[in-house]
Amino acid sequence: MSGTVARITEISARSDVGFDDAIKVGVERATATLRNVQGAWVKEQKVDVTDGHITHWQVVLEITFVLD
Amino acid sequence: MSGTVARITEISARSDVGFDDAIKVGVERATATLRNVQGAWVKEQKVDVTDGHITHWQVVLEITFVLD
Amino acid sequence: MSGTVARITEISARSDVGFDDAIKVGVERATATLRNVQGAWVKEQKVDVTDGHITHWQVVLEITFVLD
Amino acid sequence: MSGTVARITEISARSDVGFDDAIKVGVERATATLRNVQGAWVKEQKVDVTDGHITHWQVVLEITFVLD
Amino acid sequence: MSGTVARITEISARSDVGFDDAIKVGVERATATLRNVQGAWVKEQKVDVTDGHITHWQVVLEITFVLD
Amino acid sequence: MSGTVARITEISARSDVGFDDAIKVGVERATATLRNVQGAWVKEQKVDVTDGHITHWQVVLEITFVLD
Amino acid sequence: MSGTVARITEISARSDVGFDDAIKVGVERATATLRNVQGAWVKEQKVDVTDGHITHWQVVLEITFVLD
Amino acid sequence: MSGTVARITEISARSDVGFDDAIKVGVERATATLRNVQGAWVKEQKVDVTDGHITHWQVVLEITFVLD
Amino acid sequence: MSGTVARITEISARSDVGFDDAIKVGVERATATLRNVQGAWVKEQKVDVTDGHITHWQVVLEITFVLD
Amino acid sequence: MSGTVARITEISARSDVGFDDAIKVGVERATATLRNVQGAWVKEQKVDVTDGHITHWQVVLEITFVLD
Amino acid sequence: MSGTVARITEISARSDVGFDDAIKVGVERATATLRNVQGAWVKEQKVDVTDGHITHWQVVLEITFVLD
Amino acid sequence: MSGTVARITEISARSDVGFDDAIKVGVERATATLRNVQGAWVKEQKVDVTDGHITHWQVVLEITFVLD
Repeated sequence: MSGTVARITEISARSDVGFDDAIKVGVERATATLRNVQGAWVKEQKVDVTDGHITHWQVVLEITFVLD
Repeated sequence: MSGTVARITEISARSDVGFDDAIKVGVERATATLRNVQGAWVKEQKVDVTDGHITHWQVVLEITFVLD
Repeated sequence: MSGTVARITEISARSDVGFDDAIKVGVERATATLRNVQGAWVKEQKVDVTDGHITHWQVVLEITFVLD
Repeated sequence: MSGTVARITEISARSDVGFDDAIKVGVERATATLRNVQGAWVKEQKVDVTDGHITHWQVVLEITFVLD
Repeated sequence: MSGTVARITEISARSDVGFDDAIKVGVERATATLRNVQGAWVKEQKVDVTDGHITHWQVVLEITFVLD
Repeated sequence: MSGTVARITEISARSDVGFDDAIKVGVERATATLRNVQGAWVKEQKVDVTDGHITHWQVVLEITFVLD
Repeated sequence: MSGTVARITEISARSDVGFDDAIKVGVERATATLRNVQGAWVKEQKVDVTDGHITHWQVVLEITFVLD
Repeated sequence: MSGTVARITEISARSDVGFDDAIKVGVERATATLRNVQGAWVKEQKVDVTDGHITHWQVVLEITFVLD
Repeated sequence: MSGTVARITEISARSDVGFDDAIKVGVERATATLRNVQGAWVKEQKVDVTDGHITHWQVVLEITFVLD
Repeated sequence: MSGTVARITEISARSDVGFDDAIKVGVERATATLRNVQGAWVKEQKVDVTDGHITHWQVVLEITFVLD
Repeated sequence: MSGTVARITEISARSDVGFDDAIKVGVERATATLRNVQGAWVKEQKVDVTDGHITHWQVVLEITFVLD
Repeated sequence: MSGTVARITEISARSDVGFDDAIKVGVERATATLRNVQGAWVKEQKVDVTDGHITHWQVVLEITFVLD
């Protein structure tokens, strides 16, 4: 069988620093378990608020990784 | 790495009792395999019909579970 | 011509009991006119309110029935 | 000015009994603050899970109420 | 009445610094008027351009706040 | 706090003349209650029919107004 | 069986006068065949152009009619 | 009444040969019952799988036919 | 090469008279630059408001023109 | 300026052979005018029908090409 | 626990022959790892282009497989 | 002809620094070719990953520019 096949899996990652860090956290966590992670699509962006201040930045990512 | 990360997986569950039972069946089956299931979003609701009577209730769920 | 063909038609059904009953009402009404109804997809769910109380439950269904 | 005008507002309501109760909770809360509530559209349905059991049922509703 | 109820309101906020600041501006403005703001979902992200340079960053947010 | 913030609210307006009048009715009603209305986006267009004749034209509008 | 049931059918109508006329044409044609037409939702609006001039206005309508 | 009016109806067709055949099956079946079929829009494409092999190709079509 | 090919381009047009005029303005402007304009699909409809009065009507159009 | 930039343009292509040919026709026509075409996303698939037979296959493509 | 439960997973598959082959490649690869694959829904269709020629056909599939 | 007309064009821009830079790269490239660029809407956000690290940030933008 010749063609290449990739899987797409959805994760949600949360940081107390910002969106860029939340994406980094999500990608690193995915890489720790999955081989050949190629990229991620940012599907959602949310913030948690306490007493008028943003306390967490959360992203939902669609992670793509190539199957061996 | 500080932030928390969750995965979101999609399942379809079917019951011959009703939608509430179908959701319960789906959540219990997910819990049997996955640790730290936190919640589920009801994405689709369908019924099967035979001879004018509803025989099955089916739901598609997006299950969220926290990664260790 | 070999393959099977089904039609998909959209109905809206209303009950003064609840959503489960509204789906049942819609499926039974569809069955009274159409042969070979196979299933229904719940596309919308609404309630009517009078004086703070829910008086009707309404669903929009996509009904599938096999053509002879 | 002749025509009637209504406002549409979005609320999220949560119950520890089921979806029907969550909708009732949301409609009653809306009625406590807003006059002339006419209906609600069920936009989202979610459940919270703890130790494999559903603990809360949550709905997001679009509430319509007529302006005087 | 037991269950908790939240309202979801939509605002648009603009900053001449960046998207992170626009979100902060929107959340702070919402907090000034609304009690118990819990979070915000980033629905849209736009930039204004003058003479080839970005002059404003604008976000549309869905703000969630718990009703007393 | 520098940036400008606007709120977006959804209304439904109905006229027995036509869509243009329904939009005018909705904008005027919004202006009667809200300060600094800037614009409206036409989200839905519907007509009511009785005995084969259109009796009402209805629009759903997303009204934007700047917060002081 | 108590609840009321309506069917929703989709038609496309075209006029050489304007959108309002196209909607009227579609509603009248639907009324000629279907009993108890209640309303129509404007789903699409298109124009045909020849030599820089609009020659036809076309609408796609979702017609609702109550089943006896 | 001058303008032309068309109806749009949704069917699902299945073939054990491929997608092109499924579309042909659906169009031919629609033509057998409906006059003046003008075209079809491919809304969904699915395959059934048994023991790792594709056994059926299924399409959902929106069929347009002009009313006399 | 036999088949016909068309391009689809998106424009936004604004009038101080009404939506019909805004569509006409957009189609005429497109025709001034592009050859063989065939039609336009109305994607968005917005109004600008000043002191409670509608001052501009704006449409977003998807213009189709055949390539030579 | 370091980063790479691509443009995305939408075309519609029609063939009297089939969908694969329609995509090929569209890609070749795009390549005749645009440099560095990289790929295409199939956005819509339609067929024209005359006397119960499919006469044309039409696709809407989003063409991506890298800017020099 | 009585009801049946299925999982839905998303994969992307690529072929240098055509879309039909890409779907076959994706289904076979899924079957190699997952038991009880039942079907697949074609979510996206793309082509890669080099020097005006299509070099790869890519599909995104939602694979459904029944859990034991 | 009085009204103003703008065109909306879609581009994809990539940076090895971050999303803010990718948007800046895209806006500057658009400004180099198009006159009167007014703004951009962020439609998609993606990252490329190599060996667990993000190597590129990519955005898809809808650029609006006023026609003379």
